[in-house]
Amino acid sequence: MLNVCTPEEAIEIIRREFAGCSTDTELLPLSSCVGRVLAEDITANEYVPDFDRSTVDGYAVRAADTFGCSDAMPAVLTLRGIVSMGSSSGIVIHEGECAYVPTGGEIPEGADAMVMIEHSESYGNEEIGILKAAAPGNNIIYRGDDVFPGKTVLKAGRVLRAEDIGALAALGMSEVALKKRPAIGIISTGDELVPVGKKPGAGQVRDVNSDMLASSVELFGAQAKQFGIIKDGYMRLRSAIVENLDSCDALLISGGSSVGQMDSTCAVIEELGTLLLHGIAMKPGKPTIMGRIGSKPVIGLPGHPAAAFFVSDIFVRELTAIMLGIAPRSFTASALLTEAVSANHGRAHYCGVVLSEQDGKLCARPVRSKSGLISSLAGCDGYFCIPRDSEGCAKGDEITVFLR
Amino acid sequence: MLNVCTPEEAIEIIRREFAGCSTDTELLPLSSCVGRVLAEDITANEYVPDFDRSTVDGYAVRAADTFGCSDAMPAVLTLRGIVSMGSSSGIVIHEGECAYVPTGGEIPEGADAMVMIEHSESYGNEEIGILKAAAPGNNIIYRGDDVFPGKTVLKAGRVLRAEDIGALAALGMSEVALKKRPAIGIISTGDELVPVGKKPGAGQVRDVNSDMLASSVELFGAQAKQFGIIKDGYMRLRSAIVENLDSCDALLISGGSSVGQMDSTCAVIEELGTLLLHGIAMKPGKPTIMGRIGSKPVIGLPGHPAAAFFVSDIFVRELTAIMLGIAPRSFTASALLTEAVSANHGRAHYCGVVLSEQDGKLCARPVRSKSGLISSLAGCDGYFCIPRDSEGCAKGDEITVFLR
Repeated sequence: MLNVCTPEEAIEIIRREFAGCSTDTELLPLSSCVGRVLAEDITANEYVPDFDRSTVDGYAVRAADTFGCSDAMPAVLTLRGIVSMGSSSGIVIHEGECAYVPTGGEIPEGADAMVMIEHSESYGNEEIGILKAAAPGNNIIYRGDDVFPGKTVLKAGRVLRAEDIGALAALGMSEVALKKRPAIGIISTGDELVPVGKKPGAGQVRDVNSDMLASSVELFGAQAKQFGIIKDGYMRLRSAIVENLDSCDALLISGGSSVGQMDSTCAVIEELGTLLLHGIAMKPGKPTIMGRIGSKPVIGLPGHPAAAFFVSDIFVRELTAIMLGIAPRSFTASALLTEAVSANHGRAHYCGVVLSEQDGKLCARPVRSKSGLISSLAGCDGYFCIPRDSEGCAKGDEITVFLR
Repeated sequence: MLNVCTPEEAIEIIRREFAGCSTDTELLPLSSCVGRVLAEDITANEYVPDFDRSTVDGYAVRAADTFGCSDAMPAVLTLRGIVSMGSSSGIVIHEGECAYVPTGGEIPEGADAMVMIEHSESYGNEEIGILKAAAPGNNIIYRGDDVFPGKTVLKAGRVLRAEDIGALAALGMSEVALKKRPAIGIISTGDELVPVGKKPGAGQVRDVNSDMLASSVELFGAQAKQFGIIKDGYMRLRSAIVENLDSCDALLISGGSSVGQMDSTCAVIEELGTLLLHGIAMKPGKPTIMGRIGSKPVIGLPGHPAAAFFVSDIFVRELTAIMLGIAPRSFTASALLTEAVSANHGRAHYCGVVLSEQDGKLCARPVRSKSGLISSLAGCDGYFCIPRDSEGCAKGDEITVFLR
């Protein structure tokens, strides 16, 4: 029997033991990449743009021809032509000449600045007056200003946002190498469980954890594989693990939080692999087990839904991040606690909160409930942790809220 | 021609003009609901749990029988039986009696507290010693403690998180009424554009905006419909709008940011509907158009990818939120600016940042680039805004970063 460890130690165990569980790479079309994890550095091998472009509608000029001009004393240039979008300018600008270029059009050879159309006037007869001096480079994006060969545009491990998809499109990457989403198997155990669609009989409750944990891991970037409900019993659990472990990269087993059942889960993991952790000093969530069968992580979560939720949100999130090669992402906010919350005898205590703004300050009202009640967490805006070595939190304390 | 308006005014226009564009409701299986928007309040019509349950492994007792007991002076009770998981206890506890109940098992009639097994000892012969007094209600979840008929568990407009899915599962909701994801059509315009998979020729660039905007709206909770690239020209644009508007709930048209093209987009919207806004005092992003054709929002975004990105992230996010009936979600963090950034003559200036921690403080390095360069935003951790009435931001200023 291993000792109960702290949440920080549990995170350390996950990082140390499962560092090698990184998923493979797969190629996907660009339109399916947002939110996914980039598997390789993206280094450009071309110029973007591949030609000098105007950023305004106006006249391509030789800047020197405009020096000293003004509204009162325009520089008068000869219009050599009009550049069309999407084709080579085909124009060469000599001293005293200009060409009209629309936004995004190619800068003609010989020109080194763009003058906005607002700072020009046309005298007809192909004579254009420039009313404002331009410095070389004005309103021009040069070839390779955005991207040039050898520039690393994105690094492996980036969770791709819309702007990254834009950069990949600019580079012509219609397919992208992504980290595969780890397949995380989910088993619920317990004689008392019935499927969500069924009305519970005497002493029965619905299987809350299968759908909740599936949703949870999908949000972390994994793919959930629900293996359903199995009845209590060492051999049944052993068979379910042996049967399903091959088809997933990690396995979550929830329930079995009574002493006897928890012992079964431990014993199966010890028989088939290595037990790494038995119990975490947190509330709710203490009856948590971690082990490894072959190279695959197997986590036993409490049957109580609220406890399973916190264990998943903290530890399965960390595990999934490691498998994807990313830092686990969670957003936080500082808020003032509206009521005192007592500490919990050496256990980190996680508590849901509802946020509101009062006098321009973010306030967090702790949601009190018995352990295991999932409806108390539904509808919360986030949660916070009272550290295990704390005396509790007082009304008005500033807390860090993990936002949902 | 309408006047240029501020970003705040543009948000107001969206809220006022498109408040009625809320999407319909659809029923989906619970396993497909995470991240989606709840269409109706969820009010329970049953008890969860439907029976009194133990939260520990141990003995169900009449609390009064344990008063005054201790390690030195156990209360000795007669074991009436063992409760099985998933079935009615079938036991009645009288004075001086107890029953073994596993975690989650039903509390027998007559019992009003649970004593943890750690605080008991067995003397054989069905005699159990209780070593610690229990108060009535100890370690029991009563019928309806989690949910009771009439309790509103979740409100319409909630973006469903894993814990909400858990609560819906507990209520037996195997199907849930969700807001339909609005279908947002995307058109790129410009003679210079080639598809991402094609090598640009002279004067050509790849269509960055189609995939970027599609990714963007998917993250906001909408469904993207890419209608491809159309060449410049009033009639071509008009046909593309007429042809595709029926199959989507809103339309984004990017490109056409040269004066002539922008005028075309305006003119088509004015011919077919109502032009609401022409130009936003922001940088990048000024050449933005908003209108309505029939009841449907039509937004013209700048062709420059970085500008299109900011317009989408700010205004299309707001529009999508309104269509889904939610508050737009974005996460922020306070950070210290590592370099001064100058202000922009009456325009709100948006600038990407890279975050790092220095001496325990979050620092934001502004990413400088010419307008329109998407690679400068790729890989950023967020962005911030220098308000249009500001003198700029100094090194060390505390800024609010919109996190990516």
